[in-house]
Order: sequence, then structure tokens, then C-alpha cells
Amino acid sequence: MTYPADTPVVGMAGGGQLARMTQQAAIALGVSLRVLAGAADDSAAKVVSDVRVGDDRSLDDLLSFAKGCDVVTFDHEHVPGPHIRELEASGVPCRPGAAALAHAQDKLVMRERLSGMGVPCPAYAHIPAGGALDVLEAFAAEHGWPVVLKATRGGYDGKGVWIIRDSGEAADLVPRLLAEGVDLMAERHVPFRRELAALVARSPYGQGAAYPIVETVQEGGICTEVIAPAPGLSGDLAAEAQRLALAVAEGLGVTGLLAVELFETDAGLLVNELAMRPHNSGHWTIEGARTSQFEQHLRAVLDLPLGSTEPTARYTVMANVLGGDDPDVHSRYFHVMAHDPGVKVHMYGKESRPGRKIGHVTVLGDDLADLRERARHAAGYLRWGKALAEREGRR
Amino acid sequence: MTYPADTPVVGMAGGGQLARMTQQAAIALGVSLRVLAGAADDSAAKVVSDVRVGDDRSLDDLLSFAKGCDVVTFDHEHVPGPHIRELEASGVPCRPGAAALAHAQDKLVMRERLSGMGVPCPAYAHIPAGGALDVLEAFAAEHGWPVVLKATRGGYDGKGVWIIRDSGEAADLVPRLLAEGVDLMAERHVPFRRELAALVARSPYGQGAAYPIVETVQEGGICTEVIAPAPGLSGDLAAEAQRLALAVAEGLGVTGLLAVELFETDAGLLVNELAMRPHNSGHWTIEGARTSQFEQHLRAVLDLPLGSTEPTARYTVMANVLGGDDPDVHSRYFHVMAHDPGVKVHMYGKESRPGRKIGHVTVLGDDLADLRERARHAAGYLRWGKALAEREGRR
Repeated sequence: MTYPADTPVVGMAGGGQLARMTQQAAIALGVSLRVLAGAADDSAAKVVSDVRVGDDRSLDDLLSFAKGCDVVTFDHEHVPGPHIRELEASGVPCRPGAAALAHAQDKLVMRERLSGMGVPCPAYAHIPAGGALDVLEAFAAEHGWPVVLKATRGGYDGKGVWIIRDSGEAADLVPRLLAEGVDLMAERHVPFRRELAALVARSPYGQGAAYPIVETVQEGGICTEVIAPAPGLSGDLAAEAQRLALAVAEGLGVTGLLAVELFETDAGLLVNELAMRPHNSGHWTIEGARTSQFEQHLRAVLDLPLGSTEPTARYTVMANVLGGDDPDVHSRYFHVMAHDPGVKVHMYGKESRPGRKIGHVTVLGDDLADLRERARHAAGYLRWGKALAEREGRR
Repeated sequence: MTYPADTPVVGMAGGGQLARMTQQAAIALGVSLRVLAGAADDSAAKVVSDVRVGDDRSLDDLLSFAKGCDVVTFDHEHVPGPHIRELEASGVPCRPGAAALAHAQDKLVMRERLSGMGVPCPAYAHIPAGGALDVLEAFAAEHGWPVVLKATRGGYDGKGVWIIRDSGEAADLVPRLLAEGVDLMAERHVPFRRELAALVARSPYGQGAAYPIVETVQEGGICTEVIAPAPGLSGDLAAEAQRLALAVAEGLGVTGLLAVELFETDAGLLVNELAMRPHNSGHWTIEGARTSQFEQHLRAVLDLPLGSTEPTARYTVMANVLGGDDPDVHSRYFHVMAHDPGVKVHMYGKESRPGRKIGHVTVLGDDLADLRERARHAAGYLRWGKALAEREGRR
């Protein structure tokens, strides 16, 4: 495999759909994407020529993968921080670096740092293994039930998050989790109006760029729909959310993308979660912004000037396609594409399993109610097929 | 390599930039693209996991490549027709098929068929090996000098096309070409106002879709710039061009994309060339239309419903990036991207050689003069770098 001498090689640890969609941007930029995938049939491994199959929690595999990469980045948060520091020590730039990424890998580290920076967060407390229930009861006494219990590390898509309604539930669950070795923290169950997300990029050179603030709709801890821009959000609050995300990126020394999940409450914005990579709440940018989040991430980690975040339509709506019980998704393209020639279908090449994110759809235009209906219909039909009408009738 | 059971495999013969950009669309559709490339470092081979290195003029290589493909399509016109007929006979759908593709492979076959259908074309005549100069003189006596001389097969980007100004030039060139075994035809040198292109798709099911008509700007036989839609084109003439292209697609039984290059003359439209694949005049659709030509081609050859051809901006301008004398294109990204955060850069992973198409840039907006200036600056800088200003000053 030979490349023009000047073609940079970006290594991405993880072979999921984020790496897969990054490949579309790498093709345009003439950048060579190398993926470290757990298996040769991972989502990204199917569409990249330079695939290394290995374990992204193994230092040996990471060092061998990184050899010849101009920069290493990540499609998830699960590469151990000490390994990233070893990569950095070996001379491979990692973007984001281990020091920044720690805040996306450990929710307690993140809360402590953001609170120290004065960034508004929900009230929280570490739950120590000794005296756990007492600490939790004291937290609930101050902030009220229910309490949000979180694993400090390793959660995603609602996994690692539990809503504890009372002392009885706490006494049932907490000792069990501690016995499994899960490190826990408690957070106030915030009465929010809705969830928002702020997506920004920051380059090593120090340039920042912020996308329009979006509304994210969750069901059962999984994002189902993203509306860009967040409808009815005041200009002041939108600007505050962008400023906040840029300040976090700067304060934490993030290079690449930073997604900040936010609660909009009566008292203002609170930071929920951070991710330092392309994010589900930014898939709308593929068609809905002049520069997609995947291209922006590549530009940022390569220290290229960042691209315009200007929206390309008044509204963009993205809906996730979850797996249903019939895995033959392709045969359902016929209806979806004939019914709506303007819907953009993105499938991830993943086996369909019930509830698994296997793709997304995007629609763009002026009439938000119509766009949401179109996105929901397409995503629902790709999931359920002809059973859709029946299921919708049941609700 | 395993795929979900329902993932179709599209084989594309040829590993150039058209196959490369088709991969971006295949990733979104969850379609598996297999490429038959002449070398492992061909433009598309660098970005596709399923690459077969072989000779797309060898029947054995084609048959082996096609095994397991649900459909075979092409990124150029150079696969021999008899081989495509053999593939079809072996049970592999080829789209376009050999019968249709013959009209894009042989300009004389195309002229005879289109003239028979009543499609307006420039006056033409075959130049037989015996009595060639007499036939050419008679043609010039009827239609005037200069005469356009074309190789009936194998030309591209101005290669295989000669402008013959007088009998002396004819006497010098024609015997030499005939001695090399080139089959020749003459065409009237049409006094056109400008060149246009019509891009349509047609599926085996019989659905058709037409993109807005574009203006193409050529320098030295190479397309340098495409403006979508063609500025100042009357609605009647635009509709006529679309109708004409759809009629050619239907009449010739094209499946997949058909690009029709047109001359706009005082007397109306004339067909110049045909291509049955994604086409340089359609690169603007990646950002400028709701469905890119690459996605549309995949949808058509898979017999999926076609996507919306609606433009996403008032004007889109695409400029080709040609190779300059300094091959380090990547270092020139910094200026281009910092200067214009909205320009979309597409590089093909090809070694830079002077005059070779190595990429393109696209800009979108309302102010056409500004867009053309931005596109020209970005393409020029990627070609020449700091020497650009000097070269522009020289003109």
C-alpha cells in the first residue's frame, strides 16, 4: 500500500459506526484512516482498507497499531488512560490526550474538574464502598429521591445509570453493584425541561468552532431523535451553551471534538455528560452543516483549520434506527425510499439485534413537525417494517 | 469478512476516483462495494476493504471478480463489450448492460443510434481507412473547416479529439493515426455558446430522475469548472435538456447514471458525448443535491427507488484540482481551509502529476460571482500553492 508522500495517516482505536462514518470524511480529505478493530467484521472494518484487528485495551496491540500513524484518536472512551500515556510517551500524538480524555472516561473526575471550573453541574457525591448506603441516604436527604446512581466508568446508552426511587431500592441494588466491583456516584435527579447537546471542536493550534445547539430526545436512556437547532431556544441560552462547551474544551485541553450533553432546567443549563469524539447528537451535521462532525474531528486532530459549522437548512432532524425483530433491513429500503425520496439513510453494517443502534436517518427542511414525522416514519419502518402500523396503533 | 445476510454487494470495475467517491455513498447505504482495481494503490483501492487487483480487460479477472456480486457496474468505459456480455450470460446483472454501454464506448455507434432516434447531434461522418482524406475533404466542403476529428473509441479528457484547421493539417495527421490503427470519425466544429451537461438516472424498474442542468467550463479539453444550475438557462431549454437525457436513457436501455454532454447553440441543443456512470459534471451533487450522483448510481443499479435530485443551495460551483509541479498538496490545505472555512475539499489519493485531475473543490451559496472566485482560488492554490499569485499575475 503506497500513498502520496504527504498523505497523513490517522489511526482510530475502535471499529464502530463513528470510525465508519469518519472514513467517509477521510476519503474526501485524502487522509488515510487506519482502524484498530476488535473483529474483521466490525462496522468500520468493513469499509476501511487499513484495518488492524486487535484489542484496544492491550498496550502491545495499541503500540503496534500506532506505528506509522501521524496521530491516534478514538471512537469510544474505553482505551485505558495509562496506555494512552504510553502511546504519547512513545512519541505518537494522541488527540484527545490521556489527560483530557480522563474527564470523559470517569464521571467523578469530570464532575470534580467541571465544578472546580465553575461549570454548572447537578449535585453529586462519590459513593464509597464502606458506608455506601449511609452516604446515599444523606445525599437523598439533602437532594430528595429519586437519586441517579451512576457507575463512574464504562457506561453508555443508559447502561451504568440507575434511577433509585427510595431507600428500599438502594438497599437492594447498591451492595450488589459494589460486590461486582462497580465504582459508584450519586447525582441529583434533575427536573429538566429537555435535553440539549453542544458540539464543539478544538485544534492543538487553539482554534475553536461551535455547532448550533441541538435538542436530543431520549427513550429508555437511548437517544432516539436529534433536532437541529433546538427549537425555541433563546439566542442567549444557545450562546451560553456554546461558550460553556468551548470553555470546557479549552479548560480540559481537548483536541478534536467535544460533545457536551446538557439539561435545560428552569434555573438554566447543567452539564450532564461529556464525550471527546464524534457523537450521536452530531450525526445531523453530515447533511445539515457545511462541515460534518466527522470531517471536523479529522481536521482538528490533524491540526488543520476548522471548517464552517453553518447549517445548510432551517431544520435538520436525525432519528436513530434501532434493531427490530426482523434482521432483513435492506428489503425495507424499498418502501422507505419510495415513500420519501428526500430521506437520507445511514446504515452501519451491523447485525440487527433488538434495540441496538444499527443506523440513522436524516431529513432537512423548513417544516419541523413534518420533518419529525418523516424521520420517525423512516426510522420506525426500517426497524419494524410492515409491523410498524400495528405497533403505532398499539401505543 | 462477514456481512449481515441482506447486505448487497456491488462490484465496480475500475479503481479510479469515481469508485472512490462511490464508496462514500456505499458506506451510508450499508452496501458493500467491491472494486476491481489495476493496482493496490489505485484511488479507490486505498479506501475500500474488498479490493480485487486485476485487469478489467481480462475476462478471467472479470469473472472471478464478479463471483458473489449482486450487480456489476463500471467506473469507466474501457471494459470490452464482449466481456460484459459474457458476464451477463454467466448470470451477473451488469448495469449498464453491454447493449447500452456500447453507445458510451463507441462514438460512431452513439451518433448513429441517437440520430436514428431523432436526437439532435452535430453533423458527423465515419472516416474509412481507404479514401480517408477524400471523405474528410468532402465533409469539410459541406460543413466547413475546422473539422473535429475523433477516435471512435478510447478517448477521454480531450485525448482522442483533434481540431483540424485545414487540408494541410488533415494530410499530416490522418494517415499517421490510421497507421496506428485508430478508427476515426469527423464531426462538424459547432459554434456553441457554451457547454451544458444533463445528468439523469434510470433504474431497471423503469424509474427516472433528472438533476438540474449544469454549465461546464472546459480548458484544453479538460473540464475545469461546473456551475449548477447553468446560470441564465431558460426553463424551457432546461426542461428540454432533461427530457432529452431521460429519452436517451430510456431509448438506449441505460441502467444507472447517464451523463449527456451538450452544446448550447443559437439553434438549440446538440448532444456532444455520453457517459453511463458518475461523471465529473455531477461531482457538485455531493453537497449540492439532496442525493449525490454516487448514491443515485448505487440506488439505480440496485433497483432501489431513486433519491431526490433537489438542489440544496441556490448555486453550487465545483472546480477541478489539477496537479501542479509541487506534489505536496497536503501542506497547501492549511491556507485553503483557513482562507475559506466553507470550501469542501475532495482529494482522490492520486499522485500529483502536472495537469492530472487529482481532486475537486465545491462551494455553495447565493452569490455566483463570489462562489466562482472562491472555487477558482481554492483549486488554484491546491494546484500551485504560493506560486498561484505569480501565475495569476502573469495571465
